[in-house]
Formats: sequence, structure tokens, C-alpha cells
Amino acid sequence: MVGKKVRVGVIGAGRIGRIHTKNLVQKVEKAEVTVICDPRYEETKEWARSLGIERIVTDPMQVINDPEIDAIIICSPTNTHADLIIASARAKKDIFCEKPIDMDLEKTKKALEVVKEEGVKLQIGFNRRFDHNFRKIRSMVEEGKIGDVHVVNITSRDPAPPPIEYVKVSGGIFMDMTIHDFDMARYLVGDEVVEVYASGSVLIDPKIGKAGDFDTTATILKFRNGATCIIDNSRKAAYGYDQRVEVFGSKGCARAENDTETNVIFSNEECVASDKPLYFFLERYMQSFEDEMHDFVDALLYGRKIPVSGHDGLMAIVIARAATISARENRPVKIEEVL
Amino acid sequence: MVGKKVRVGVIGAGRIGRIHTKNLVQKVEKAEVTVICDPRYEETKEWARSLGIERIVTDPMQVINDPEIDAIIICSPTNTHADLIIASARAKKDIFCEKPIDMDLEKTKKALEVVKEEGVKLQIGFNRRFDHNFRKIRSMVEEGKIGDVHVVNITSRDPAPPPIEYVKVSGGIFMDMTIHDFDMARYLVGDEVVEVYASGSVLIDPKIGKAGDFDTTATILKFRNGATCIIDNSRKAAYGYDQRVEVFGSKGCARAENDTETNVIFSNEECVASDKPLYFFLERYMQSFEDEMHDFVDALLYGRKIPVSGHDGLMAIVIARAATISARENRPVKIEEVL
Amino acid sequence: MVGKKVRVGVIGAGRIGRIHTKNLVQKVEKAEVTVICDPRYEETKEWARSLGIERIVTDPMQVINDPEIDAIIICSPTNTHADLIIASARAKKDIFCEKPIDMDLEKTKKALEVVKEEGVKLQIGFNRRFDHNFRKIRSMVEEGKIGDVHVVNITSRDPAPPPIEYVKVSGGIFMDMTIHDFDMARYLVGDEVVEVYASGSVLIDPKIGKAGDFDTTATILKFRNGATCIIDNSRKAAYGYDQRVEVFGSKGCARAENDTETNVIFSNEECVASDKPLYFFLERYMQSFEDEMHDFVDALLYGRKIPVSGHDGLMAIVIARAATISARENRPVKIEEVL
Amino acid sequence: MVGKKVRVGVIGAGRIGRIHTKNLVQKVEKAEVTVICDPRYEETKEWARSLGIERIVTDPMQVINDPEIDAIIICSPTNTHADLIIASARAKKDIFCEKPIDMDLEKTKKALEVVKEEGVKLQIGFNRRFDHNFRKIRSMVEEGKIGDVHVVNITSRDPAPPPIEYVKVSGGIFMDMTIHDFDMARYLVGDEVVEVYASGSVLIDPKIGKAGDFDTTATILKFRNGATCIIDNSRKAAYGYDQRVEVFGSKGCARAENDTETNVIFSNEECVASDKPLYFFLERYMQSFEDEMHDFVDALLYGRKIPVSGHDGLMAIVIARAATISARENRPVKIEEVL
Repeated sequence: MVGKKVRVGVIGAGRIGRIHTKNLVQKVEKAEVTVICDPRYEETKEWARSLGIERIVTDPMQVINDPEIDAIIICSPTNTHADLIIASARAKKDIFCEKPIDMDLEKTKKALEVVKEEGVKLQIGFNRRFDHNFRKIRSMVEEGKIGDVHVVNITSRDPAPPPIEYVKVSGGIFMDMTIHDFDMARYLVGDEVVEVYASGSVLIDPKIGKAGDFDTTATILKFRNGATCIIDNSRKAAYGYDQRVEVFGSKGCARAENDTETNVIFSNEECVASDKPLYFFLERYMQSFEDEMHDFVDALLYGRKIPVSGHDGLMAIVIARAATISARENRPVKIEEVL
Repeated sequence: MVGKKVRVGVIGAGRIGRIHTKNLVQKVEKAEVTVICDPRYEETKEWARSLGIERIVTDPMQVINDPEIDAIIICSPTNTHADLIIASARAKKDIFCEKPIDMDLEKTKKALEVVKEEGVKLQIGFNRRFDHNFRKIRSMVEEGKIGDVHVVNITSRDPAPPPIEYVKVSGGIFMDMTIHDFDMARYLVGDEVVEVYASGSVLIDPKIGKAGDFDTTATILKFRNGATCIIDNSRKAAYGYDQRVEVFGSKGCARAENDTETNVIFSNEECVASDKPLYFFLERYMQSFEDEMHDFVDALLYGRKIPVSGHDGLMAIVIARAATISARENRPVKIEEVL
Repeated sequence: MVGKKVRVGVIGAGRIGRIHTKNLVQKVEKAEVTVICDPRYEETKEWARSLGIERIVTDPMQVINDPEIDAIIICSPTNTHADLIIASARAKKDIFCEKPIDMDLEKTKKALEVVKEEGVKLQIGFNRRFDHNFRKIRSMVEEGKIGDVHVVNITSRDPAPPPIEYVKVSGGIFMDMTIHDFDMARYLVGDEVVEVYASGSVLIDPKIGKAGDFDTTATILKFRNGATCIIDNSRKAAYGYDQRVEVFGSKGCARAENDTETNVIFSNEECVASDKPLYFFLERYMQSFEDEMHDFVDALLYGRKIPVSGHDGLMAIVIARAATISARENRPVKIEEVL
Repeated sequence: MVGKKVRVGVIGAGRIGRIHTKNLVQKVEKAEVTVICDPRYEETKEWARSLGIERIVTDPMQVINDPEIDAIIICSPTNTHADLIIASARAKKDIFCEKPIDMDLEKTKKALEVVKEEGVKLQIGFNRRFDHNFRKIRSMVEEGKIGDVHVVNITSRDPAPPPIEYVKVSGGIFMDMTIHDFDMARYLVGDEVVEVYASGSVLIDPKIGKAGDFDTTATILKFRNGATCIIDNSRKAAYGYDQRVEVFGSKGCARAENDTETNVIFSNEECVASDKPLYFFLERYMQSFEDEMHDFVDALLYGRKIPVSGHDGLMAIVIARAATISARENRPVKIEEVL
């Protein structure tokens, strides 16, 4: 790639699209957002102008075919991801695409094939890999401080379930929520999952059960290298967003506690109290959203390795699929059965 | 029971027998240890005298048939437990028996039947229920502070594997080590397990694998009331004895961190360091060994409910059996299949 | 003030001047930096252009007399502060001035008089009041959660002493370093200091002693309302920047622990280790530098109260003066003796 | 000393006398308590018998002159200490005496002279030196891990003030409460104090002020080796007994947090809560009371150095005296002025 700045077009100006755009404009000096695409033209325009972005379009192809653009950030609805990846790749643009690539495995694989064929770069939006805590643990694994990884424990609980309408189209808790943890497990262990056993319950809201989904799950992943990962999910923790990770290995154990607003401890007659975790992903993971953009832009500019590949995106979906089958049929499911 | 003091005879003066005896003599004012039985007569005598106990015998029946004795503490090898329980019950003695009752389910059930028939009391040595941390969490569950229990996470890791000769006769990791965690899960949830899925690996010592056992396991228990328990075991944690428990419910989450020798935090150029966990069960659980004796003696004296019943002893064995099958056959196992 | 944006000129583009400028440009949407003044013209120009600021001048009066400017940010050397405040006030500009206003009390008072006379606003750069931890504790004091304040403990240690050349012109440790803690004490207690006792030692570097200064100090402040504040300073903590505060009152005690890069805890054979504190003030207090600019701009735009007043600036200097006398003469010094 | 067990007589069976007696009987195998002296004959007898002690006397000389006794534990009122020490020393008994030796310096010195003359051993009851946390910090100082000691911070707050009648005869807060912290400071630093500055307030109960005492104090001690110690005392902390210590040196900083009943952390909608500190000294320091007896008995049996000497007892009183003068006259007081 030639030139000092990466010129970026963003497709989809919903919540996450706006976060990426704002980060690119305000924090990533080596990027320039030149066009935003969203069907909600007027409101997108107003918001974009506050960031100094003048060009708003409603047809994604206007972004994709724009010769002034180097890279595309895909933040549109999930069911459009695969097609937009393919079109962007054909147009020789590098791509950042939100997770999941697609809930359909075949469409996902097809998109990855085109990406490979065209030789463009593709980064998937598993932002948690960039979280300061988890990144440090991964680096401790890489440096050998933890030794061989034996067990990974991931606790991932939301402060409140999403609206039931969302639940119905979410693809299920494993595809919608645990998918982040599946990617985290692969990231921390640095190897591939070979088998999944998942157990699901409906303990929070019977409507979630009626929608065919679970709200509380426990999942065991077995890795090729012998490591085991245990994931514990809940759609509702009374105390907020609980995002902890522990990696236990032959030399020691690293665990990440939750982030908090302050480090103030208050003692009174009742108890010794500290802060609750940061409320939800927008608070907790804001730093990671910024850093994934930095790394994406740097990968393009300096020819570095993309930190979250299309293969990573694919495997998370595959594991989510296996977990869904496992929980429904109450049996361990081999990854090769699904892939 | 009449009289102010419970007169106790101890069968088996190995490590745990000596702990119970010493606690009874020095800490439990309402108990009196009048006789100790152990085949190693001379060394037992010397040790017993240092505690002021004069009567040493080598035949358990001399204890069981002693009319001066109210209760029997059974600390002999596991394969003698069931028979000694039966004999003690027939002799109308109340009984404290170390865990597990027996590895054989039929023998265990038979012993419990006789106990019931004779109307004596039987407490099983699941000492961890008396640990200050876990007891507090259980009381929070009972008081409703945690709400409905959704998930229990138990981390239970030893500082080092036992000698391989012990591993071979241990009944396997689920019967030998996880059995404590199975009881802890039942204690914390306050309900019965209906299904088990267990996964085992050999990551620490291949000799353990050759002996047909695992050294690293992950287990998921499903309870009748919908709660899920996840247990994570390892035979070897580099940093020592890791004994943590977390109960997550509809109203909040209580977790017990490890106990340490001191609360000193040391900051230097390298890091901010605190103590490692207390080394092993003798250090960590000494308070619980003492308290289980207090509660046993109080239950006899004041007609209180036995805190860990024969049924509790049975169910731990049943779950261990189910877990063993599950890990070997890699499938979830219903408790009713084993019971 | 009319207009939606505050137009700002910055005098002094050294380290802190650049921090404020960058924050104003990138984080404070309601501010616009239109001119920078610094004698180092070329290097300032290059840096300013990277932030989109075109106008660079070398004479502060060009900023002060610029009719397009609403407010002046004074980040030039301390000995220029008073004169620049006076000139800015005469030019009817609102002012943000770095601490200390001036080491000379009379010059400081004179500057504050002119500010009052001209009716402009003046904020002093005690950024730590905006730190998330300390701000929370102050709000707990205000809400009455801590009750009457009895004792404030401030631990404030640097990772390394400044160069000895700097020490010589710094005005001494109380004026240079503890001054922040004096302001913090007044902020947390919300009342005035009436007496100071300070004790100083030279334990880190004898050159600091030869320069007539201390490197380790303990200070006791007595407040009008009866509260006591204890400040513990060191120029060199092996583990980094130690910035803790504790407020103890009739209803409880709030304390702020250090901020760290991550919340990862690592256990191995040696110990259980967590992160060292963030390295120095640029890391620890970056959020506070940003927030003091937000509050300054908001105070101007919306007619809000200035959060750190000229009086606050004056009192910190007065207390520093009293502490210096106290440590030299080894006696408690009344504030009225100095004021 | 010949013989395997130390035969001990206890003078004074109040709260602390009973604690020492019980520890000697139940925990210190190498000691034997053969006689108790207390004017409250009947109630002392009943209690003593429950511990198996048969001989009760009401005249201390019956203990002191008992040829069967090796050592005397003095737990009678403070104003009897010096005389009993002298009498015991004359009778060639080794002595453990509760703190303070005497509030009168001359009487204290006289007692120490007789002890020296007679060549008996004397240990003073500064039990906190034996606390697991503080002992570890002291050992870190000794091992050089902390480097040269620069600053010691001691936070020592009671859960509630003593009855006002007690306050009136207590000798004042510095002699009654801070005296423990003065000893702790000397213990941690391992050197002598040369100057004291103390500041006292009445913030908790005006009756304490009317009795001529303070309820909230801050004290600065300067040591011969350059170290500074800051002590922060309050007679009433809403959250209980706050007993923390921090030693900051050239290589790092060790701090002891409070001990708690459990290590359970509970998160709910309100906050993340942990246990309050152990309620008061009987809870917090029980382990130290036991260990000081072990060390006393071992010192006698094996000719080891007495861990808290008469000189230590004297210096704590001297510093308390200096602090009292300092707070009253609001000036730093040199130790040599008082000694």
C-alpha cells in the first residue's frame, strides 16, 4: 500500500459503525474516513458532519467502487456481511468486518475464498483480543510464563438480556454471545478446538426459552493440544458486566479481574465496598475498539499480519454451531462434524 | 444422649485420625477421647500418651463394643469403612466416618440401611462444608442474598499429585479428589444433581495416564432445580493449593478467594506481590476439621441435625461414579443410571 | 460569553502546554485552539500543524491582545505566570494557568486582585482534583457518606527524583511536589488549613540535600474544622508512582488505590503478582488533564463555577511556604503567620 | 533452666490474664500453669478448674515465693507492675509483664535495674510484634528486601472508645493506645526514636476532651537512622478495628492489610463487598497472644533472646510521654528531654 494515510469508507452507521468511525477520525492519525454509507441518510449526515465527514451515500457499492478508498469497514447487518466482503474483495479493497461473518457456514467460506483469491486483507471484529487485560494474558502465554496451557476459564455475563425480538433473530446465545468467548479461547490457547460440549438452561426469562434459546450456559471446549476451556455465560448478572478470564498452565495461572470506574474502596458499618464492573461492553471494551482500528490500519500501512483473520472468524462460527448442536442434543460434538 | 461429655473412641491413628483426636482433646471441651485403635500399637501409644490418652487397642471391635464409649470416629482405610459403620451401628454407637464411605455403592447403601435400622447418627467427613469461606457463602444462599442459584464454579487444584502408588488405588481422580467438590456443589446449591458430564486429560504426569487416571478434569453438574455447577480440577498448581468457589444467582454473586498466611502486599521494581495460597489441605482446612468435630459432638449432645449425613456421603460417591463413566465414555451420564 | 465554541490561545508549548493543546483539539469539542505562543518557533510550528493549528507566535502579547481569542491557557515558566495573568485579565480574557501561580506570594496576590478587578475567570491547573478516584472520594464527602472528616492520609511518591538542576530552581519539594497534595487536602476536606508541621529528610540523594532541599517528607495539616491531614512524600519509590488518598470520617473511610495498566493477577511458584502503578503523572493523570479542560471550557460557556479558583492557587502556595518554614525551623507554623 | 516444662504462675485473672492462661494450658505444650493469683477468689477458682488448674491464691507473694514456679505472668493492674516485677526478680523468677510496665518512668527504670541485677529474664506484652502480618514485614526489613527504611505508616483505629471512666485513668491516648504503635514503629524500623511531634483532636466524644484526653491523633516519629514514622490513631472507626502498617524503603514497600473473617467477595446491584476487619483486638490479635507465650516459654527453655525486652517496654513509655507533652505544648519533643 502506497501513501501515508489509509483512506477508509464505512458501511453501516449504527452503534458500532459510529464507534469505529469516531475512533478512526479522532484517534487513528494514519486513517482518514472519506465516506459513510447508511440508508438513514439525513441522520447519518448530521452525525458525520460533526466529525468533519462530508460524503454520505446510501448504496454500499458507491463506497466499494470508490477509487479513492483503500479499505472498507463493514458494520451493516450480519446477513449482508458475506456479500459485502465478496464485493469489496473483488474491488481490491482491504476489509474490516464486524463479527460474525455470517451465520451460514457456506456463505462464510465462500467469502473467505474470494478474499484469498483477490489477495486482499480481511480483519474480523473480535475486539476483545485487544482488551488490555486479555492481551496481557495472551502475551504471558506467548512468553512462556504460564507454561503449557492446561485450563482456560472464561466468565462472560451480560448485565441484562437483549430485547426478546433481538433474541429471536440472534442465531442463539452461542452464535450471538458465546462467539466472543470462543474466539477468546482460541486466542488465549493459540490452538484449534476439536470438540465441544455445551449445556444450556433458561433461568432468567421464560420468553427466551419460548424463543428456542438459552439464557444461561456452560461450555467445555477441548483443544488439539490437550487444553480445556470452560466458558460460563449468563444473560443477566445483577452486578453488571462480568468479563473475567483465567489461564492456568504448568507454570502458573494468570487471571483478569473486571475493570472498574475507580479504585476507591469504601468501608463503613455494613461492609468494605468497591466499584461494580464497568456497565457494559461500550464502557468495558472502548479501549479495545480503538486498538483494533489502530492495528487494522497499521497492518495495511506496514504490511503487518492481520491480528484477527478470516479463518478466526470462520472458526468462531463453527464452534458456535457445534455448541448449539451439543446443547440441543446433549452430547459432545466434534468440530469436524460441523466444519 | 445423657451426660455432659461425649465419650469417643477413634479407629485409625493415621494422619487424619490424629488430627481429629487432637482437635477433640484440645478444642472440643464437650468430648473425651478414651480409646484409640490402630494396628501400629507402639507408635500410637507414644503419640496418644502425649495427649493424655491411655487406652490403646489394636482390634476395632474392642472400641466398638466398649460400653463406656458413646461415639466412634472411623479413620481407618476406606475399604474398612462400611463394615465398621455396620458394626458400630449394631453396637448402637453414633458414628463419624471419613469420606468416602466406600467405593462400592452396594456396600455403601447396605451400611446406610443398617445405620437407619439401628437409629444411630452418622456424620461423613466432608470437612470443607465447615470452611469459614464456604460456610459463609452457603449461609448467603440460605438467606436468599444470592437469589436463585444459577451457576456454581468450583476451582480445586492440588499443589502436587499424590505418589503414583496411591493414584493406582485411589479409585480415580473423581472418587479421590473431585468427590469433595461434588459434595461442595450439593452443599452450596442445596439440591440434588441429576446429570454429569466430565472431561479428563493427562497433562501433568503420563504415569497417571498409564495408571488409567486423569490429572486434569472439567466437570459439569446439572441440578434438579436448574442450577449448573462447573468444577475445574488439577493435580498440580505451581502456586499451591487453589480452593475457590463462586456462586452466581439471580441477585448477585459470592466468591471465596484463597486463604493466605498473611495479608502483606509487597511492591518493588518487579511487581506488586501478595502471598500464595496456604500450602495444602492441612493448612487451609485445619479450621474446618476442628469445626466438624464441634458440630458432630454438639449434634449428639443436643440432638441437633447431623450436618453431613450418610445420604450426603452416598450421593458424593454416586456422582463420582457417574463422572468416571462420563469421562471414560465421553457422554453425559444421568445420576439415575448409576444410583 | 457568546458563541458556541471557546476560542483559546495557548502560551507555552512545553510538555504540559502540548498536553492541554492536544486535549483541547481532540477531546474538547466546544473549544478551538487558534493560536500557540512559544519562543521555539520552528519546532512549535511543526508540532502545531500536526494538530491543524496554523497560527504560531513568539510574543505572548500577540495572544493576549488577539480579539479573536476568548481564553488564554498559560503554560509558560512559573516566573512568567503572574505577569501573564495580569495582562490577560486586563485584556478581559478568561484564564487557565498552570500551578503554581508564582512562588512569590505578593506577586500572586497582586495577580488575583487584577483578576478580581477585571471580573475575568481564572482556573488553576490542579489537575488531580479531576482524577476519577479522588473526584469520587470528594463526592462521597459531599454526599455525607463519610460523615465528618477526621483524618486525610495522602501518600504521594514519585518514581524518580527530577534532575538536580531542576531541584535547585524548583522552590523546594513542598512548593514543587507537595503543593499538589496541599491542594488535594483542601479539596477533599472542603475547608481551610490553619497550621502546618512538616518534617523533611534527605534519604535518597545527598545532592538534593546539598541543594538545600529534602527528598522525603512527612507533613501534618490542621484544618479549621478540626480535620487533620497527613501527607507522606518521597522523591523515589522503587515500584513507581504511588498516588493514594484516604479520607477517614465519622461514618466510614474511603481510600483510593493506585491505577494500573491491567487487572491481571499472576500466580506462580514465587508469589501472587499484580501490576505496578501506572508509571508517572503522564500515565496516571491523563484523564484528569482532559477533564480539567472540559470543566474549564464548560465553566466559560455555561457560566458555571470555576472548579479550581485563584484562591485555591494562592492557598496551596501559602501552605507550601508554611511547610517550608516548618521543616527548616522544626516547629508548627500557623497559616496566618505566612498569609 | 533445667527440666522439660516451664512451670508458670499467673498474677491477675482478668481478661488478658485468662487469655494467657488458656493459651499456656491449651497451646503451649512446654508450659504448665500451676497457680493463679487473683483477689476474686471464687470466680477465679471456677474458671481455673475448667482448665484443670487447682491452685488459686489471692496474695501475689504466694505465687512469687512458690519454689515450684519458674516464671511469673503479670497481668494485674498497671500500677502494680513495677513492684511485682521487682519482687519476682528478687525471687529469681523469670517474668512476663503486660504493657505498660508503669506510667511512672522512675518506677519503670527501677524495676528494670532490679531485673538486670538479678539476672532474670523479662518479656513485655507487646503482642502485636507476633502478629503474622507485622512479623512478616519485620522479617522483610531484616532480610533487606525493603532496603533502607524511609517511612513507616501505622494506621491504628479502634472500633469504639473505652468507657469514659477508663479514659480518665488510662494515662491518655498516647500511653494507652498509641503505645502499641510506638513499639511497633521501633520493632519495624529496628532503631531508636529521637524526636516526636504529636497532634491531638477531640472529634468523637467531647467527654474525652473534658477528661483532658484526645480521641484522634497524628504522630510523627523521627528515628536516629533517618527513618520517619507516621501514626494515625482514632478511638472510633465505624467499620471496626483498623490495624494496618506500611514500611516504605529504598527497595520497595510492604504493607499489611486488615485481617477478615472470610475471603468472600459479594457482588450485587449495590456494590462489590468484602468483609469488614476482624472486630477488635481479641479477634485480630489472638494468634499473636498465643505466639508471644510460645516465644516466652521457648526463650526460657532454650536460652533464647527475649523477643520484647524491658528496654522495649521502657522506650514505649518514654515515647508516649514525649508525645503527650508534644500534643499538649504543640511542639516537637526530643526523646532525650524525657528519658
